[in-house]
Order: sequence, then C-alpha cells, then structure tokens
Amino acid sequence: MFVPRKILEEKLRNMLAEDVGQGDVTTALTVPANGTAEAEVIAEEAGIIAGIEEAKILLESLGLKVEIMISDGEKVKAKTVLMKIFGDTRTILSVERTLLNIVSRMSGIATITSNLIRKIRKARLKTTVACTRKVAPGLLYFDKKAVLIGGGDTHRLHLDDMILIKDNHIAVVGSVKKAIEKVRKGASFSKKIEVEVTRVKDVVAAARARADVIMLDNFSPVQIEKAIESLKKQGLFGKVSLEASGGITAENILAYASKGIDIVSLGDVTQSAKALDVSLEITNIKKKG
Amino acid sequence: MFVPRKILEEKLRNMLAEDVGQGDVTTALTVPANGTAEAEVIAEEAGIIAGIEEAKILLESLGLKVEIMISDGEKVKAKTVLMKIFGDTRTILSVERTLLNIVSRMSGIATITSNLIRKIRKARLKTTVACTRKVAPGLLYFDKKAVLIGGGDTHRLHLDDMILIKDNHIAVVGSVKKAIEKVRKGASFSKKIEVEVTRVKDVVAAARARADVIMLDNFSPVQIEKAIESLKKQGLFGKVSLEASGGITAENILAYASKGIDIVSLGDVTQSAKALDVSLEITNIKKKG
Amino acid sequence: MFVPRKILEEKLRNMLAEDVGQGDVTTALTVPANGTAEAEVIAEEAGIIAGIEEAKILLESLGLKVEIMISDGEKVKAKTVLMKIFGDTRTILSVERTLLNIVSRMSGIATITSNLIRKIRKARLKTTVACTRKVAPGLLYFDKKAVLIGGGDTHRLHLDDMILIKDNHIAVVGSVKKAIEKVRKGASFSKKIEVEVTRVKDVVAAARARADVIMLDNFSPVQIEKAIESLKKQGLFGKVSLEASGGITAENILAYASKGIDIVSLGDVTQSAKALDVSLEITNIKKKG
Amino acid sequence: MFVPRKILEEKLRNMLAEDVGQGDVTTALTVPANGTAEAEVIAEEAGIIAGIEEAKILLESLGLKVEIMISDGEKVKAKTVLMKIFGDTRTILSVERTLLNIVSRMSGIATITSNLIRKIRKARLKTTVACTRKVAPGLLYFDKKAVLIGGGDTHRLHLDDMILIKDNHIAVVGSVKKAIEKVRKGASFSKKIEVEVTRVKDVVAAARARADVIMLDNFSPVQIEKAIESLKKQGLFGKVSLEASGGITAENILAYASKGIDIVSLGDVTQSAKALDVSLEITNIKKKG
Amino acid sequence: MFVPRKILEEKLRNMLAEDVGQGDVTTALTVPANGTAEAEVIAEEAGIIAGIEEAKILLESLGLKVEIMISDGEKVKAKTVLMKIFGDTRTILSVERTLLNIVSRMSGIATITSNLIRKIRKARLKTTVACTRKVAPGLLYFDKKAVLIGGGDTHRLHLDDMILIKDNHIAVVGSVKKAIEKVRKGASFSKKIEVEVTRVKDVVAAARARADVIMLDNFSPVQIEKAIESLKKQGLFGKVSLEASGGITAENILAYASKGIDIVSLGDVTQSAKALDVSLEITNIKKKG
Amino acid sequence: MFVPRKILEEKLRNMLAEDVGQGDVTTALTVPANGTAEAEVIAEEAGIIAGIEEAKILLESLGLKVEIMISDGEKVKAKTVLMKIFGDTRTILSVERTLLNIVSRMSGIATITSNLIRKIRKARLKTTVACTRKVAPGLLYFDKKAVLIGGGDTHRLHLDDMILIKDNHIAVVGSVKKAIEKVRKGASFSKKIEVEVTRVKDVVAAARARADVIMLDNFSPVQIEKAIESLKKQGLFGKVSLEASGGITAENILAYASKGIDIVSLGDVTQSAKALDVSLEITNIKKKG
Repeated sequence: MFVPRKILEEKLRNMLAEDVGQGDVTTALTVPANGTAEAEVIAEEAGIIAGIEEAKILLESLGLKVEIMISDGEKVKAKTVLMKIFGDTRTILSVERTLLNIVSRMSGIATITSNLIRKIRKARLKTTVACTRKVAPGLLYFDKKAVLIGGGDTHRLHLDDMILIKDNHIAVVGSVKKAIEKVRKGASFSKKIEVEVTRVKDVVAAARARADVIMLDNFSPVQIEKAIESLKKQGLFGKVSLEASGGITAENILAYASKGIDIVSLGDVTQSAKALDVSLEITNIKKKG
Repeated sequence: MFVPRKILEEKLRNMLAEDVGQGDVTTALTVPANGTAEAEVIAEEAGIIAGIEEAKILLESLGLKVEIMISDGEKVKAKTVLMKIFGDTRTILSVERTLLNIVSRMSGIATITSNLIRKIRKARLKTTVACTRKVAPGLLYFDKKAVLIGGGDTHRLHLDDMILIKDNHIAVVGSVKKAIEKVRKGASFSKKIEVEVTRVKDVVAAARARADVIMLDNFSPVQIEKAIESLKKQGLFGKVSLEASGGITAENILAYASKGIDIVSLGDVTQSAKALDVSLEITNIKKKG
Repeated sequence: MFVPRKILEEKLRNMLAEDVGQGDVTTALTVPANGTAEAEVIAEEAGIIAGIEEAKILLESLGLKVEIMISDGEKVKAKTVLMKIFGDTRTILSVERTLLNIVSRMSGIATITSNLIRKIRKARLKTTVACTRKVAPGLLYFDKKAVLIGGGDTHRLHLDDMILIKDNHIAVVGSVKKAIEKVRKGASFSKKIEVEVTRVKDVVAAARARADVIMLDNFSPVQIEKAIESLKKQGLFGKVSLEASGGITAENILAYASKGIDIVSLGDVTQSAKALDVSLEITNIKKKG
Repeated sequence: MFVPRKILEEKLRNMLAEDVGQGDVTTALTVPANGTAEAEVIAEEAGIIAGIEEAKILLESLGLKVEIMISDGEKVKAKTVLMKIFGDTRTILSVERTLLNIVSRMSGIATITSNLIRKIRKARLKTTVACTRKVAPGLLYFDKKAVLIGGGDTHRLHLDDMILIKDNHIAVVGSVKKAIEKVRKGASFSKKIEVEVTRVKDVVAAARARADVIMLDNFSPVQIEKAIESLKKQGLFGKVSLEASGGITAENILAYASKGIDIVSLGDVTQSAKALDVSLEITNIKKKG
Repeated sequence: MFVPRKILEEKLRNMLAEDVGQGDVTTALTVPANGTAEAEVIAEEAGIIAGIEEAKILLESLGLKVEIMISDGEKVKAKTVLMKIFGDTRTILSVERTLLNIVSRMSGIATITSNLIRKIRKARLKTTVACTRKVAPGLLYFDKKAVLIGGGDTHRLHLDDMILIKDNHIAVVGSVKKAIEKVRKGASFSKKIEVEVTRVKDVVAAARARADVIMLDNFSPVQIEKAIESLKKQGLFGKVSLEASGGITAENILAYASKGIDIVSLGDVTQSAKALDVSLEITNIKKKG
Repeated sequence: MFVPRKILEEKLRNMLAEDVGQGDVTTALTVPANGTAEAEVIAEEAGIIAGIEEAKILLESLGLKVEIMISDGEKVKAKTVLMKIFGDTRTILSVERTLLNIVSRMSGIATITSNLIRKIRKARLKTTVACTRKVAPGLLYFDKKAVLIGGGDTHRLHLDDMILIKDNHIAVVGSVKKAIEKVRKGASFSKKIEVEVTRVKDVVAAARARADVIMLDNFSPVQIEKAIESLKKQGLFGKVSLEASGGITAENILAYASKGIDIVSLGDVTQSAKALDVSLEITNIKKKG
C-alpha cells in the first residue's frame, strides 16, 4: 500500500482543513507570528505504533521539521517519545489535534490487530488475521494501513478488488454454483474469486465450482469442523482457502483459528478499536528572531 | 448543526466513491443492470440510533427510495428494522457497506453518549456530558452530530469556534491571567473564552480574569472539590462554568459529575466507541421489467 | 484566524487557476521560458495594507521569492512599495492580476474599517466596529481577515459560530423570550447567544432571558437611547452586550456609537468597500542564463 | 457566457458550504425539521437586477421552489419583490445570506455599469463600456456576468482569451512593434491581438503593426485626441479599435468617450461597486405536516 | 465495473466544465434562453458502440431527456442513430462536443478490441484479449470500461489491484524466485500474483514459485513455444496462467494466440485506437414557450 | 499556453492518484522504503517529443530529481534517452505508468501534427494546420499543448474562446447573415467571430457580413475552389480568413492546402493519434543508506 507522499498530503491536509475551519482563533490571539517551538509526540500508554509516516508527511507538508524516534510497527511502553517536531509555533499548535487523532486511531487499530495475532501465534497457529471493509467511513486507506502495520491482512481494499460473492449476490443469481460459474465467465483473469457461504453443504459446492476462497459466514467452530470434514471427504481440502468471518472476537478467536481454516476476519479491529492515548507537548518555545 | 442536504451529499458521496474505486466488480458480474430490489437496514443489537438522516440523504442522492422506520435518537431493541430501501439492485449492493459504516459508527457514538448521560441523570445530576475534538480524522461533523443525537454537548466544533486557551498557549504567554487578558483584548465579542488549568490556584486566577469557562484538566475528584472550595471562598463560584476533562471514563464519571461541576468531557465517546452492529438484508428482488 | 499556510495556498491557487484558464497565451508568446525578473508591488494611494500574508503565500507557493516591505495593518502613503518579488518572469506576469486583486480588495476593506474606528476613537468612544456576513460570496475568510487587520471585529465567522437568533427564527418560535429559552436548553455551553430585536420592549425581554448579546436591528439613535433607558430602569444595563446594526454608515456612525452601545456593525465595510489601487511593476528582467 | 446549470451549481454550493461550516446551529435549535415556509427576496433600493439566474439555480439545487418575479437585467424601484421561495424552512434560513450576497453583489455591479452606459448613450455616443480583470478574487464569472447584464462588455474573460500585450511584455521584447510581430507569428488564428501603449507615438506603431485593438493606458483626454490625430494623418484611423483605460471614473467618462475612441474600460465597476441592498423575508411558515 | 451514477456524474461533469470554461459565448449570443430542441447522436461509421451509459448519465444530470436506441456493446452500421436527446437547446449545444468525445473514444476502443477478439474466435481460439494500464492519462475507468464492452479483459484496474512483479521490481529483489517468495509472504490472501519474465528459463522458475500468472514480456512466438515446452516437461503447464505482452498487434496477434497461451495483452487498444466518427444533429428546435 | 507549474501539478497528480488507488501493492512488497534509484525515460521509436515539461513538473512535485536531455518539440531517433530521474525508488516505480502515458500521448500527437506540417511546407505552402476540440475528454490542455509543440494551431481552447457559429446555431437564428449580425451586436470586442458554412453561397454571405474567419465545413477541394472564386469576384478574397474542416486526412491534406485557404483543421491529430512508444528503465538501484 505504497502511496506517493504528495497524494497522501492532500488527504491529510483535508483532515486538517476541516478542523481549522476559518482559522485557529485561540492560537492567533496568544501566540506571536513567526515564533518557533519544539514539541514531542508521546505515547501515553503501551502499544504498537502506526500513523508515523502519515504524521511525518502532514507535518513536513506544513513546513515543520520532524525527527522520528519510533517507526510504524514498533512496540512501545507508556510514555515513549514517538517523534520530535521543530518549527513555527502557530502551525504546531493548529495541527496538534489532527495529528494526534491520526496517530491515536491508527495505533489503536495496529495494537488490537497485533494482540490478536500474538494470541494466535502463541497457540502455534499460522492463521491469517484479516480486517474487513467495516472502517470509519472515508478512512479506508488509513484503517487498512494500520491493520497491515499491526501484522494483519488488509482483505479487499475496496469494491474493485477481488471478487467477493456475498449472500445477496447469490440470492440474485440463484445458487452458489451458478454464481461462481457466472463470475468465472466474466471476471478478469487478474481477480481471485471468493464466495460467502452460510451452510456447510454450500462449502463443498463452492469448492467444486473452484472458488479461490470460501468465506464461512457466521459459522460456529463446530460448523467449521463439519465443513472441513466434508471438504476432506471430497478430496477438496487444501485446494481452496477458507476464511471464517462473523461473530469472531478476541475472546473466541482461538476456537476459530484452531480448526484449520486459513483466515479469520473481524470488523472490530477497524470499527471498534480503542484509540491509543497519544499527546503532544511543547518542550521549548522561541519567540520571533 | 443543520446542514443543507446537498452539502452533506457531497461528503457522503466522497465516502462512497472511495469504497467503489474503479467499480463494484462483483455486483457488475452477478446482478443484471436495471433490476430493482427492496432491502432492510437492521440494528442487530440494542442501542440509540444515529446516522439515519445521513443514510437517507446518501441513498436518495443515488436515486433510491427510503422509508424511515426509526429516527435519529430513538432507542431500539436488537433486530429492529431501521429503514427500508427500494430501487436499483446494483446501487443498493454497492452502497451497502458505506451506508452501514455510517450508521454503525454514529449509532455506536450516540449509544455510549446516551448511556453516560442516563447514568448521570439517574444520580439526579444535571451535569452536561461533552465530547472533544478527539474524533476519527475527517469525521468531525459526523462524530459531533452523533454525540448531539445521543444527548451530549458538541463542545468546540473546530478551531474557529470558542476560544480555548490550553496549556501550550499559556506557556507561550506566561500565565493564565495574562493569557485571558490578552485574548479578551483581541477576541471577537461573539466568542466565549475558556481556559484550561492544571493547578487549583489557577482556577481562581482564571475566574478572576473573567474566563467564561474553566477546564480543570486531569484534576482528580478531590482536586475538583478543592478548586470549588477556593472559588466559593472568593465568591466566584457560579460566576464561571466549570468543565472537568482528562481521565474520565464510564466507570468514574459519577465521581466527577457529583462534585458540582457543570460539564464533564471525554474523548472516548468519539474515539473509542464500539460500533453498533447494523446489517442490510435484501428482502425482495425483481429482475428488469 | 490563523490558518496553516498550506491550507491557504489551496484557496489562493484556485483563485489563480480560474484566471489562468487554459494558460496565459500572451506571456507564453512574448516572454521566453526560464527567464527571471524582479518586480515591485506598489500602493498607488494611501491606506491600510492587508493581504500581504496571502500574497506572500501565493507567490512563494509558485516558487517566487518575496521580500516584504510593509506588513499587514501598516498605514502607507501613496506610491509606497509593499513588497519585492524575484523569480520566473512568466510566473510573475501570470499571477500579477490575481495577486493585485487580493491585496486591493483586502486593503480597501482594512482601510475603510480603520477609518471608521479612527473616527470613533477620536470621539473618545470605545465602541467596537464589527463587520457582518455580508461578504463577497466565497470570500468569508479574506473579507473577515481584512476587517480584523483594519482593527474591526469579525463577528460570527459563519453559521456554526455564536448562536444568532434573527427575526425569522423568532417568527417560527413565537417570541424573543421563548426563542432564547429554547436555544439555551439546546445550545452547547461553548456558544454565546445573541438575539436580534426590532422593538424597544423586546430589548428588556431579551436581557431578562439572559441573552449574551442583543442586536438592535435598524434602531434609530433615539430608539437606542430608549432601549438603554429601559434596561437601566430594570437594572439590566451592563449585564448584556448591545449591538447596533442596520443603516449605519460612515456618516452617522458616531450618532450610534455615542449612545453607549458596545458594538456597531456594518455590511458596507465588506460589501461596498472601494478597492485600494495597487499595481505591479517589473523593475528588472533577466533572460535565461 | 452560458454555463450549464449543474456546473454553476457546484460553484454556488461551495459558496454556501463555506458559510454553513459545520452547520447552522441557530436554525437547528429554533426551527423544527421538515417544516416549510414561503419567503420573498426584496430589492430594498432601486437598481438593475443581476444574479437571479444564479439564485434560482442555487435554491432549486437545494430542493426549494422558486418563482421569479424580476429577471436579470430588469430595472426595479425600491421595495420590489424579486422572487418568491417555497420549501424547507431550515434550508431557506441557512441559504439566506449566501443568496443575498450573490444577488447584492451582482446587482450592484450591473447597476453601476448600466448607469455609466446610460450617461454615454444620453450624450449620443456609442462607446462600449468594458470591465477589466480587476474582480473580487475567485469571482471572475460572477463579476463579468453582472457587467454583461448591466450592458457592459466583459473584455478578456481570463488569461487564455484574446492576446493582450501589456507594458511588462513589451519591456521583455523590446518594442511595441517587435512584440506585435512576435505574437502574430505565434498566436492562434482564433485570437485577436490587443496591445497596451503609454505614449502617443506607440499608437501609430501599434496600428502599423496591425494590432486589432490598441489600449491607450492612462492617456488624458488631450493625449487621446493627439493619438487619434496621428492615426488620421497616417490613414490608420478606423482600421484598429481603440480602448481607453486607466483613471476613468463616472465623473470623467464622458470626456473620454467623446473623443472618438471605441471602448472605455474601468476596474471600478467590478472592484469598487456598492452592493445593492437586498433582503429576504419569511412571509409564511408552516410547521411540519 | 459498476459505479453508482452519481459518482460517474461528477467525473463526467468535470470533463464538461473544462470545455465550458467561463461559458459558451457563441450559444449565449445565438440561442435564446429556455428554448428546447430535439437532437440525435449518430454513428457516422460502423463499429461497436460504447459510452452510451456515460452519455446518458451526463445528459440526464444536465436535465436533458434521453432515449437510447443503441446500447453499449451493440454493433452498428454507418449512419445509425444511437440516441435521441430532448431539452434545453443551450444545454444540448454546450455539451455536444464533450458528449461526442466520450462516445467517440469509447466506441473506438470497443471496436478495435472487438475486432481483435473476432479474429481470434474465427481461428477457433479461446485466448483472452486484455488491455494494459497504457491509457489516456486520467481516463483509466473510461478506457478499461470500453475494452470490457468490446469483449476484452480489463487486466489490473490500477496499482492496488493484483500484484504484478515487473522487471524493475525483480531487479531490486534479485531474482524471479525471490521476488515471488517475498511477495507471497507479505501479500494479502485476496490478491493474485503475476510476474513478468523476459527469459524462457524464468518461466519455469516463476511456475515453480507458484505465481498465479506469468507474463511473457516481448517473447516472440517461437520463444513462447519454447517456454510452453519447458513447462510441459516440468509438469507445470496448465497450473499457471500465461500472458503474452509486448509487440503484439492486430497483424501478429494470431501468431501469439495460437501458441496455447491464455492471455494476450496490448497497449494499442487503449492508447492508439482510432476514435469512431460520431456526430450530433439538431432535428427540431422550439423557441421559448 | 503558459500555466504556473503549481496549477499543472494538481492536474498531473490527479492522474497519478487515479492509478495509485489505495496504493501500489507490488512496489510496497518488493522495494524497501527509502531506497533510491536512477532511471531513464527512453523514446523507443522516432518522433517529435512532447510532455517533457509536464513530466518534469509531476516528477519534481513528488520529490524526484530530473535531468532533461530532450526538450519539448525536439525530434528524436529511436532509443533516445529523454530524461534521467533520480530519487526514491518506490516513488519512481509508482509514477512510471502515469508518466509514460503522458509523454506517449503528447509525443504521439506532436509527431502526427509535425508530419502534416512538414508535408505542407515541403509543398511550399504556408497553410496553418489546426486541431479541433475533438480531444480525449478531460485532456483539452494536454492535447492542445501537444499540437502546439508539434507546430500546429490550437484553434479555440474551449467554449469561452472565439465565437464559432456552427450549423446548429445558424439553424436557430435562421441564416448565416442574421447569425453574424446578432453575434456582432452582442459579442465582446475582444472576440473574433468565425462562422461555419456548408454551401458555397454562404461563404460570400459570411464574408459580406464581415466574419473574421469562415469555416468551410466538409467542402471538397473543388467546392473550395468555387468558394474562393466567388470571393474573388466580390472583391472579398483576402479580407477574411478561410478554414477548411471535415474529412481532411494525412492523405488528402495537400489537395486542401493547395487551394489557397489559410487553415486546415483535423480532429484526427488529437483523437486518433498513435501514442509514441516510450519506456522507463531503472539504471541503478541503491538500497537505503
């Protein structure tokens, strides 16, 4: 998910512009123009840090200098300085909240993702942990990038990515088999085809129709076992990737992961992650000159 | 926070455009053009609903018809149908995720806000519950609106709103007193002036300098008591609004609210709210004609 | 009204882009690529200068160097050099008109605002001179900023700022008293509440209902006197700010200001200000190399 | 200057969006959702009306109905109703100021333009009155359109329009003659070529080099006479259009127009026009249902 | 590639806005406001039609009515009427060129794509014909959609689609094998992996490393044969998709397609397609009323 | 057509942003962050080069360094290095395709334009070769600029440029004569007036009505001869510019040009030009540090 920084800059600046409105009236009244300051961005609690690249791009695009102490993906203890900022005091104070909102949200997502993966790896499982498209509206890039930094899989980036045939698509076409056949005929060779199934018997149908990935939607761990047995009986196990989705949480994720499926996906990592507490402190202020 | 719908439409459509990318390839391959369908948006869990107005505007701007069953601010049980949608099947399926992301996030924020307020009212307190500018970056309007629907106070909408002198501004000017005086001289008559203080003695200084609101930042309940006592001694209590902020959670909010302050503010309601589980189900599909 | 320069840059560049259209055909045909020049921006008439910060940001964003001779808010005589510009000749010539339009308009507004204030201060009055939202459409920031530079008050920056209950709002609610009560119940603690009244008796009603500011709309100086007397009788004078608005001009402003009100506001400073005559002269041209 | 309305809509809505900010807080608190109202837009003073088409497009794009009483270009007396508006009360109140700003500014420009032309026609002269590119920054379309409605000539619409060789271009090339020759060689056949001259002798040089239009910049009426005489001597009078520009005002315009030149141009009509006083009054309010 | 029409509308209107500039001056001067007309869009030459959906969306978004005679993908003879348009005459004339440019370009691309496919099918081959990302800059959606309508494969829609490891990526990593391994470790499960190879021996390496698709870049038909033989020897033929790319034209495409590869891709279909000649004729004009 | 580079930057970056989508996933997985590389852009075939200025602006705006070897308008042999690029490897690889698409398209257009002109000059004719508004939708600036670089005339840049009365406009007004008269009365003095005629007799009518340019639409060479004879008879030849348009190709262009008309215009140069084959090769890669 490499994006040339100038393109990111515009997205980031729109976030800032919304918060600035017609101008930071408090800073204009208290801070003289053209003074400079140094500031530190500090993680107030432990976690996996994300959003550092975005923060740097935003700050530098505003003419500030940035010294990075902690890179995206690093694990930090509470009270760790993430970066130092140097430059125009008014600009630092005006961008403070937008900056922190970005780093807080992305680090919160990276932290919860990383925690889930650690749990799975501790159980000596290789299951992939993926997010979904359940993101804060408008923040697809940022939420997916944070999952990636936390060690997770980004899943479909948006609707033009992998084909993902869901229940409603199947309802239109008539059956899992027909839906896969129809898609295979029309889809670009460059796309994988995933299909969402809600019944054990459709898992076999999907595998026979040569889906690349099958999403077991809202299957209980027991149902997953049954589905895998059925596939084994038909000699289809291992020929298709299996994803479990729906109702998976930090509490029950091992019950799912341990059943032999390839991917578990959760909306919570992007949709209900607790933001990491991050703050900015001015450490040195120089008035003009 | 009334915004003419055409202006909201553009924000909402940008969210959708990001998710659509170069096009919904799955829907294009499985759903015939020009077919119509009916769908329901369902709250899978209980909560306070928000985002209905935004959902309606987004859907109608895409040419879909919408029948609203539940309005913004209503409390619902699990499995409640929030709205029915009628129109082009491809459009419904392409907008599904963006639509749900909006309603889920806003309802999650409204629900947690409402829960906090209920707790306070049950204790027969009138304390205002406010959010902060700690929002998902770019979602200031949506997050603040959801707080409002949940019964909370939106606090400053952005940096051009009320003057809010924070620690870093005070550091530049030199003291709470000087900062308020400087601001009062330069600020528009139309603005209230709030000042953030970190020590009990600054509370009195701020009240004497005639701040409109004093934010007690990271004060413990005990410190708040002391601050209020000091104000009473000086005959200043009741002449200035008091806001407690920092470290306030659902668990300890009553300890703060019960001390006699006017406003408690929390970043968590917008920054760490669990999304409400909301889904869309196609209930009827008509092929073309 | 501090706005990080990168955000201003985009607004300024959109103004330039409109004027450039598909390209400056004259400059392309007469001026060789990559030549450099020096130019001066000159105030052809006396006035208070504004728009210098905006000019600098626009020019520097185009890769030009700028030496500022006169800062925003300074008073100049006719024929004063405001700034010197160095850099690509084609760029200087293409931006000339947009640059001058910005400085001319903002300086014109600052000059008329400053003149009004001088008149009031000469009469030893402290009355605040405020503008309104009667600006050139789309130029809210620029027009308000120019008023500020001229020493005036920016009043509401836009519709999400201070609550301002106007005649039409009162018509909907039923009475001044009801309107204020309704607003006080729902408004954020962070907002002041102003109410527009058209009759003397409503002034007292508004003050009793604890409006923060009362706008006396289209009151004659005599009516203002009566309103103030009524407030004094009720012991309410001095407990609420009073703003006179409507029909106020440079000619009659003292008649209003001398009555003891706090603020006079005029649409004319932003809506009918004469632009200051400002020109750009190339002082030195170097061809390529 | 016909622009399909959907394109105008976007420009107009951006103006509105700036004023709305995060939302009209006053209207949200005082006016119930979904109520409807009728309103009138009234010219409080006499003048030539402009901006009606833009107002209609803006209002209709917000879902309001509009009944036009006065069309662009019509002359009205004070207190004339220009249009009636029907629809959502909240929307009407939120758009009021933006709407009035557009009609006020454009009508002000149309009125001053029309007055100048009437003066010239009364003197039985056919001289064209043109504006320049001295507009409110970002309002090129609106200011030029208002001039057109007032009976004036729009002159160059922007920098990609007619070739206009100005003093600084001539300084680069070396002489009026060389500049015209250089341009004639490179310019598209579709462009007219105008050249700005500051000395009488350059008028003849420009005419000989076959400029299509010659701009006599800051010529006094006496100098204009001399220039025309020179052209007549050379048999060049009538073979090139002559434009007088610089220092022309309502007071001295006849002195210029009467000399036999074809076009007089003034920055003041767009840059220093007094806005026409226009207001909006709610005439009928219906609550929901 | 289904895109909700409101999102397409914005892209289409930006195209129109560029052409309109400050307004259609010719139409404004010759065509009275509010007149209506009927017009036909006619294919002047035979071909496969594309761009009809986009044309319809653009026209309807401008308030015009459209009657579609020919749908996207249909083959037409010269002089076929594609659609009829009804509505505001000025709008029809202003949108004419933008409309025709869209339909001409897309139909030209669809026609050449379709011709290539017919050639291949006539030879009783099933080879897929794909385009590349060699499009007119900014027209990714439109060019790819036209290929799809012509029966071709859209290949990667943009850089966030399928992984495509090209020569320069391999140069960084060191070898085809290492590159595929590195990518497989980091890539989302949702992505296919394609690798571009320039030597026969790398084809086998790529197949062994389990690439999903191998792009044989600038292979001659003979080299392709050799590559396929090598794969067959290793028992790898049929386990990976093969794409031939580079130097393929309408003339030599059968030589490539007949070798047993799965996909041939060409830049020419999007980058050098001859536009189909399409015109608009006014068939009926009604003046106002 | 000089456009300040910052304005071009935004157009160019939008092209890149479309291709990048949610990010270049391949480059992110294969190329380490912060490595640098050198690359060459190479013309694989002979032609006239265009798009170099645009390429430089795009690359430099992304923080890359560029060394230009070949300037816009130069003629090159196959395998010529056009420019060298230095900087962040990931950025170079992500921008590669957008960069090449711009240079390929613009060089293709410049080359075909230049070839036509060479043909005409070889025949010792001075006829101007002009393009039309038949461009790739949205690429007006780029396509017209490429024609200019190839030595052609840009014709109208968009609809606010020269008045061009076409058949449909004449149909509305009633006759060529009336249309020209109507336009002359209303048009700005700054505009030339061109009229499109389809019959020989209208040529004389148009000349008599003092059109500046007459477009002979779809006239055969024989008809052109007749038209010119008629003009000569009336003493009107040489007093109006003549443009031939419609059905003109590289094959028949001399037959048109040799008849004595001033301008020939063709849609093909912008609408059906073959892109020039241009490639980018990494010549040196340095990993981080």
